Amino acid sequence: MVMAHPLSDIRVVEVSAFIAAPLGGMTLAQLGADVIRIDPIGGNIDIARWPLAPDGTSLYWASLNKAKRSVVLALNTPEGQELARALICAPGAGGGNLLTNLPSGGWMSYEALSALRHDLIMMRLTGTPAGGTAIDYTVNCASGFPLATGVGEAPVNHVLPAWDVSAALYLSTGFLAAERVRRATGQGPEVTLALSDVMLAPGANLGYVADVQVNDAVRPPLGNALYGAFGRDFATADGRRIMLTAISNRQWRAIGKATGLTERIAMIGPMMQVDLNDEGGRFEARHAIAAVLEPWFARRTLAEIGTAFEGSGVLWGPYQDFRQLVRDDPQCSLANPMFGTVEQAGVGRLMVNTQPLHFSEAGRVPPSGAPRLGEHTEAVLTEILGLPSAAYARLCDAGVVAGPKRL
Amino acid sequence: MVMAHPLSDIRVVEVSAFIAAPLGGMTLAQLGADVIRIDPIGGNIDIARWPLAPDGTSLYWASLNKAKRSVVLALNTPEGQELARALICAPGAGGGNLLTNLPSGGWMSYEALSALRHDLIMMRLTGTPAGGTAIDYTVNCASGFPLATGVGEAPVNHVLPAWDVSAALYLSTGFLAAERVRRATGQGPEVTLALSDVMLAPGANLGYVADVQVNDAVRPPLGNALYGAFGRDFATADGRRIMLTAISNRQWRAIGKATGLTERIAMIGPMMQVDLNDEGGRFEARHAIAAVLEPWFARRTLAEIGTAFEGSGVLWGPYQDFRQLVRDDPQCSLANPMFGTVEQAGVGRLMVNTQPLHFSEAGRVPPSGAPRLGEHTEAVLTEILGLPSAAYARLCDAGVVAGPKRL
Repeated sequence: MVMAHPLSDIRVVEVSAFIAAPLGGMTLAQLGADVIRIDPIGGNIDIARWPLAPDGTSLYWASLNKAKRSVVLALNTPEGQELARALICAPGAGGGNLLTNLPSGGWMSYEALSALRHDLIMMRLTGTPAGGTAIDYTVNCASGFPLATGVGEAPVNHVLPAWDVSAALYLSTGFLAAERVRRATGQGPEVTLALSDVMLAPGANLGYVADVQVNDAVRPPLGNALYGAFGRDFATADGRRIMLTAISNRQWRAIGKATGLTERIAMIGPMMQVDLNDEGGRFEARHAIAAVLEPWFARRTLAEIGTAFEGSGVLWGPYQDFRQLVRDDPQCSLANPMFGTVEQAGVGRLMVNTQPLHFSEAGRVPPSGAPRLGEHTEAVLTEILGLPSAAYARLCDAGVVAGPKRL
Repeated sequence: MVMAHPLSDIRVVEVSAFIAAPLGGMTLAQLGADVIRIDPIGGNIDIARWPLAPDGTSLYWASLNKAKRSVVLALNTPEGQELARALICAPGAGGGNLLTNLPSGGWMSYEALSALRHDLIMMRLTGTPAGGTAIDYTVNCASGFPLATGVGEAPVNHVLPAWDVSAALYLSTGFLAAERVRRATGQGPEVTLALSDVMLAPGANLGYVADVQVNDAVRPPLGNALYGAFGRDFATADGRRIMLTAISNRQWRAIGKATGLTERIAMIGPMMQVDLNDEGGRFEARHAIAAVLEPWFARRTLAEIGTAFEGSGVLWGPYQDFRQLVRDDPQCSLANPMFGTVEQAGVGRLMVNTQPLHFSEAGRVPPSGAPRLGEHTEAVLTEILGLPSAAYARLCDAGVVAGPKRL
């Protein structure tokens, strides 16, 4: 069988809002799946979330729903629910896949849908295992990480909704795993994922939970320093900051070599009574190491530091804000094949990304924009359900379905 | 076919170190795959990373390599490389899968391995698309997020290595996608993933990159406040902090109701000239809203706040450090089926987690510990390569393979 992309033979219906579930669906779409996002009339609660383009189009929504098709149905009516069920359960080898983070109500329950299509796969994201509501920012405070971040006793939230991003990728992983189960057994599982469990996993996977149990140790806030190794930030002469790290001994030696400070740094060993060839020793002596390095950075501009570190094997990087990332950094530009230019409805010409995995032979699904809300309602109902035009028009007039807003 | 778990019929060889690739492999192992991690003699560069148990066992390594089998080979010798290739390319329907973040050298290149097994899938994580070195902490500074975090002009690193965690889940997603390609075409792709691209994706997927392009806007640091909605942290009477948010109007109204402050909060609308029924309006008026709410929280203990908010529909959560998470929070305990108790070699009795997805019928792969380094060298070489005992003993004596350290 010839497939353009790894998931080109799959269709997924997504009934979702916000970040985690839409990002999961978008990941599948950017691997080739036909992902049909169903929204209620007028859009769901996330349709107008900030940031906005000048005409009010949500850049948030446009960024999280790229490469999908958009269908609008009156999901609060029996007719709208019936059409949604029909789309989810439409026959065909690649179909019978639902991804949702909406509460599992009667009309969209696994039981109701499995009765219509016995091999249905349902991916369901909840806030908590019991089905309660939670969002990234309210599970984040429980994680332990905010109180280990920054320099003081006050917690510091991460701005990246890391739990939503992880949840999205657990959903994409879990869906493909569920598909294997269906292939092997003929039955499609219901797969549930709680955002709170997604939050708990890294603390346990990275040793923090074990450290409490075994050593009664709590990771304290360390500013921008790396735990258990040498790494921290430094200021430059031209008001910039850089992050310098060393994991391997080779990377460590490269620092002394590129700065010319090898001999002075070596004095730190006996002074702090540590072995600087040991990662933990470098962590223990980090303040002394920083004291020696700080003036070297403070006397040089970012450009001079870049030149000094070119080809040196030093593991470092400059801090930049989002504007510098977009305007100055070639990795966030069309020079990076993960990015491309599209005409985004409601926005105009825009550089957008596809997903980061690259497959030999197939490459990547090219970057594409997000649909207008309801852009594909008619096409999808016609294509998948065989709905005739006159019937579609009647459903529109009755407010059961909606196409894109007239501009 | 009966499969205990979604990936029970798959074997993956992992040649890896640190977080991203091992976490990707562990995710597959915790979905049922037989994941065999190959390390060089004495372990790789991550074998002793902090935090450590009292006897020196790395809790980091033990947490990132649960549910795998461990094989130790002299990967810097032709004999060791030949054994590794033989394991990676051993025949059998479920095999021919390699996951690695080590530089793609001659002996472990896709070309060399595909010559031995034509349907080989290779998942390769690099630092940058060009194959350069990068770690979470050095791509993080380029992301734009640290300069949007906290309250001031200095960047704030997140402590969670979010890019490593994302990369791990892109690897697990990508592997299962690659497996579909193999099933359809008979050829196994080489799939590459750059950590720097993993870092770029969320900034672009969440609207930050579009905001720069369309509005020339840079997300400024907002402390612990949510952007575009109402959400921030508050201090309690007993020295704790909580995070309070409202996304929907119902959640917003619940705050006024549960605190008894509805009328006073309503005065903010005309005072700040915003519509408090609009998420963006609540964001714009966030300081005024916080001013009204702050004393309410400051006069109550965490327990009193919890009681007031019980069943109220308010979307909130308490900050806790890692010790409070482990000692006080039921979601990080054996009450949560994601956790279980194991005997962890080098550590003792330990509560550990499995992965968070739950499959109807199959449930989850139960929590298990990490192997001792080299624990399965003999068993794996015997089982997969048919190596006789005497041959194994000779390879041990020659330093080509190693079993677990004698205690």
